[in-house]
Amino acid sequence: MHVVPLGGLGEIGKNMTAVHQRSGMLVVDAGMAFPDEEMPGIDLVLPDFTYLREHADRLRGILLTHGHEDHVGAIPYLLREFRAPVYGTRLTLGLVESKLQEFGVKNADLREVSAGEKFSFGGFNVEFINVNHSIPGAVAVALRTSAGLFVFSGDYKVDLTPIEGEPIDLGRLAALGEEGVLAYFGDSTNSERPGYVPSERVVGETLNEVFRSVEGRIIVASFASHIHRIQQVVEAAKQHDRLVAVTGRSMVRNVQIARELGYLDLPDAMMVDQRDIRRIPDQDLVVLTTGSQGEPLAALSRIASGTHRTIEVGPDDAVVVAAHPIPGNERGVSRTINNLMRRGAQVFYSPLKPVHVSGHAAQEEQKLMLSLLKPRYLVPMHGEFRHLMHHAFTARSLGIPEERIFVLENGARLEFRGREARRIENVPSGMFVVDGGGLADTSGAVMRERQQLAEEGMFIVVARIDSQSGALVGEPDVISRGFVDPQAANGLVEASIEVVSRTLRRTASRNITDWGQLKNEIRRDLTSFLAERTNKRPMILPLIVEV
Amino acid sequence: MHVVPLGGLGEIGKNMTAVHQRSGMLVVDAGMAFPDEEMPGIDLVLPDFTYLREHADRLRGILLTHGHEDHVGAIPYLLREFRAPVYGTRLTLGLVESKLQEFGVKNADLREVSAGEKFSFGGFNVEFINVNHSIPGAVAVALRTSAGLFVFSGDYKVDLTPIEGEPIDLGRLAALGEEGVLAYFGDSTNSERPGYVPSERVVGETLNEVFRSVEGRIIVASFASHIHRIQQVVEAAKQHDRLVAVTGRSMVRNVQIARELGYLDLPDAMMVDQRDIRRIPDQDLVVLTTGSQGEPLAALSRIASGTHRTIEVGPDDAVVVAAHPIPGNERGVSRTINNLMRRGAQVFYSPLKPVHVSGHAAQEEQKLMLSLLKPRYLVPMHGEFRHLMHHAFTARSLGIPEERIFVLENGARLEFRGREARRIENVPSGMFVVDGGGLADTSGAVMRERQQLAEEGMFIVVARIDSQSGALVGEPDVISRGFVDPQAANGLVEASIEVVSRTLRRTASRNITDWGQLKNEIRRDLTSFLAERTNKRPMILPLIVEV
Repeated sequence: MHVVPLGGLGEIGKNMTAVHQRSGMLVVDAGMAFPDEEMPGIDLVLPDFTYLREHADRLRGILLTHGHEDHVGAIPYLLREFRAPVYGTRLTLGLVESKLQEFGVKNADLREVSAGEKFSFGGFNVEFINVNHSIPGAVAVALRTSAGLFVFSGDYKVDLTPIEGEPIDLGRLAALGEEGVLAYFGDSTNSERPGYVPSERVVGETLNEVFRSVEGRIIVASFASHIHRIQQVVEAAKQHDRLVAVTGRSMVRNVQIARELGYLDLPDAMMVDQRDIRRIPDQDLVVLTTGSQGEPLAALSRIASGTHRTIEVGPDDAVVVAAHPIPGNERGVSRTINNLMRRGAQVFYSPLKPVHVSGHAAQEEQKLMLSLLKPRYLVPMHGEFRHLMHHAFTARSLGIPEERIFVLENGARLEFRGREARRIENVPSGMFVVDGGGLADTSGAVMRERQQLAEEGMFIVVARIDSQSGALVGEPDVISRGFVDPQAANGLVEASIEVVSRTLRRTASRNITDWGQLKNEIRRDLTSFLAERTNKRPMILPLIVEV
Repeated sequence: MHVVPLGGLGEIGKNMTAVHQRSGMLVVDAGMAFPDEEMPGIDLVLPDFTYLREHADRLRGILLTHGHEDHVGAIPYLLREFRAPVYGTRLTLGLVESKLQEFGVKNADLREVSAGEKFSFGGFNVEFINVNHSIPGAVAVALRTSAGLFVFSGDYKVDLTPIEGEPIDLGRLAALGEEGVLAYFGDSTNSERPGYVPSERVVGETLNEVFRSVEGRIIVASFASHIHRIQQVVEAAKQHDRLVAVTGRSMVRNVQIARELGYLDLPDAMMVDQRDIRRIPDQDLVVLTTGSQGEPLAALSRIASGTHRTIEVGPDDAVVVAAHPIPGNERGVSRTINNLMRRGAQVFYSPLKPVHVSGHAAQEEQKLMLSLLKPRYLVPMHGEFRHLMHHAFTARSLGIPEERIFVLENGARLEFRGREARRIENVPSGMFVVDGGGLADTSGAVMRERQQLAEEGMFIVVARIDSQSGALVGEPDVISRGFVDPQAANGLVEASIEVVSRTLRRTASRNITDWGQLKNEIRRDLTSFLAERTNKRPMILPLIVEV
């Protein structure tokens, strides 16, 4: 009986976890991550499928806790390669379905489940338990395995006054605790945060206050999947007699899916088509948009820079950025806020104004969860190493002994035998990325080449060489891209040509006709010349053309 | 009489401001900024010197408010091009001198001034006023000009219990207010932050608590210029009988300068040479280091990744990251914390532990400053647009009317005539960067090329062409770098060669011998082929070799 966290860029067990017992294997979630600044040109980062491939015939199913990209984004890639039923709640599967359509993946075996449901397959007994999160239809998973009862929290918070649906099912979690939880795999995202995360309703109060005070147009940017927040914008609009326009590809799509599936109450009569926005007086309109993370191509950034096709913003208007920047996005968000303010708009953002609450449990909620479940083992998941450690600190403050807490890395394997857990040898867990639609391995040379090209540029030498004597024919050509400004680099081209010519005269005098050696000598001489002259070390590419 | 903010990447008036009247021109500060992720390979960003160049003969002096890089870092570049006396306090000039030595700039005219000093030159009367900041020797500048009295706050906070030196000279600021301030150019960095910034002493209390509880080695990372914080580490070491080792180039240099100039009280007997660290028992040692911003090459990152030459960290040891991540550095700082925790060290960092306080005034301090100075005009400076706006909101809450607040951009020119101010046409203020030691212009093609190379890679085609007929000789060669993984790209090389061959057969049949046109056709055909096959648009470089 093994449990293996398999995916998450910098985070552990965030995107995918495998549970493997004699009767078969399950995976919990199949999400993706967005690349960081060290992966130029990469579209997205997937979990490493190597371990799944090695045991592909044993895969019995995929359990999804909720519909966020970091939990379902790898599904199309997974289903292209593996065949297994996918279990999730209605909204989760609705979002997955739209994604599968986009990727042209057909015949997926999607099986809708509800919180509270319990069933068996592949030697596992599975139960879904309602939790609160920043998307509807989020569930925790209780898994009865050959080793004992496991609970995966998924992403959760405790919201006793949720916007939609029920509060987290504390009663059921308590009952599981009474039954006896062998291991709890818990969300650690907010484990550095003391106290409780406020209810989503707090944001509704702020929205109401904003809607009361603003005379012009109101624009609200939010995560497209945050249906509860979108619902609160709709409620505020209703109360203040504003119509709702929706912009941004993912926002339009998610609003449509959520309305169809009954998660969002937004009557047709309240909606304005984007093309008709100019006909609606500013004070009668609210625009729901993407771009809360400052993404340069998203609708809000284009509104901020004045390049949006249909939506403008100006004095008297207000913009609510109803999200918190994900680490790495701070500069982009700030740039967007600056540009909106330059247009004269009032901008409301967190933490200056409570327009956002987190979807992840803080320390007191983590304590509540641990106290209800009373797990024998805690495996902190979903977070960077520091967050897992703080989750562990919290657990220790409740009396869970250190040896019953496993802080793992992706690829680490936890073995359960009887009631005892121990770490055994790791499984492969490299970084797999999607680069231009295709799978790639970032450990390869390509990423290193891109980084060198980005920082130092490149320098190409074309030399025509007499294939018999190895002597240079004519003058070599040099071409640079992304290197120093050719205007500024006074005489650099001529001097470089001279350096290469000198190298080739030397090699010819030594009768060198091994083109590999010749290229190495060009590269060496030119690298030291350019480093001295420009302080830069471009990628040097000597091309020998035999004539 | 003109005032022009000239430098600051994303921030306004941060790095340099020119004050220009009939009698001559002064600049206040000459700092630099660090490049952001959109400037790959760039070393640093300088203010635009164009305006200074246009009026070079009128430059009478450079006034420095304090020794931080973003206020003095451009001095070597400035003094290579312009000749003017540089005024600053002792520590500021000490830091500038060491920088000038490093750059080999000789014969600079550095003139030491003290807070409280007042003197005239170039038609200006200048007075330096003591303020508190995260470096000793920080001053505000009062400038009596032909238009009236200007006050530049520099970077400041109000610390009534400073670690060293005097509290901010509120009395003198009040007296200037009584005299009548025409315009106040004030630090806006923390204008979104309510309340007061706590005294630096708070950090000393936390350090004491950490030193009391830790049994192993203690490592403290801080800004190298934060002499007050370094002093507090020394005090805690003294109290708990630990010796002090210093590591990281800038930390070693700044500690040395501060000791020589009497700003840092660190007796020889307490110091350990880095090479002797292994001989000191862990419980008797504290290491002061750079790397609080997670810079990959700094000492702390190397300690965290286990690649530091002399310093290790392990269980029982503790690391204090006594700084807050500057926007853009969050991921690097987080990576360092994760790695330190992986080694088993306890890590103390802000905001979980009060190991850092800001050096910039929050809203209540800004109100105090505005109330004392009672300026006719406020020009919020030092901050992104959003911060300037919030400074303006604070001023308006004190009753300063909107028309007397000028929120400017870099290059905007404010004209004073009589007691009236108005905006007149802008001066040039592009972005100037240092790239491999030389000045470059990021608006040029080089930056765009680097970005394309970084994200899409490059694809080179070498074709030998009969110079008479324009026909292809042999097969073209293709070489890619930073493009897709050649292993993964099944048959892509062969197919690309075929695409190029086809293009060249077509051009030969049309008797095209214009190499420019030929290259364009290769580029066009190959771009669409590669985009379809790989979803990427590499830089394509066709090279034609005539044979």
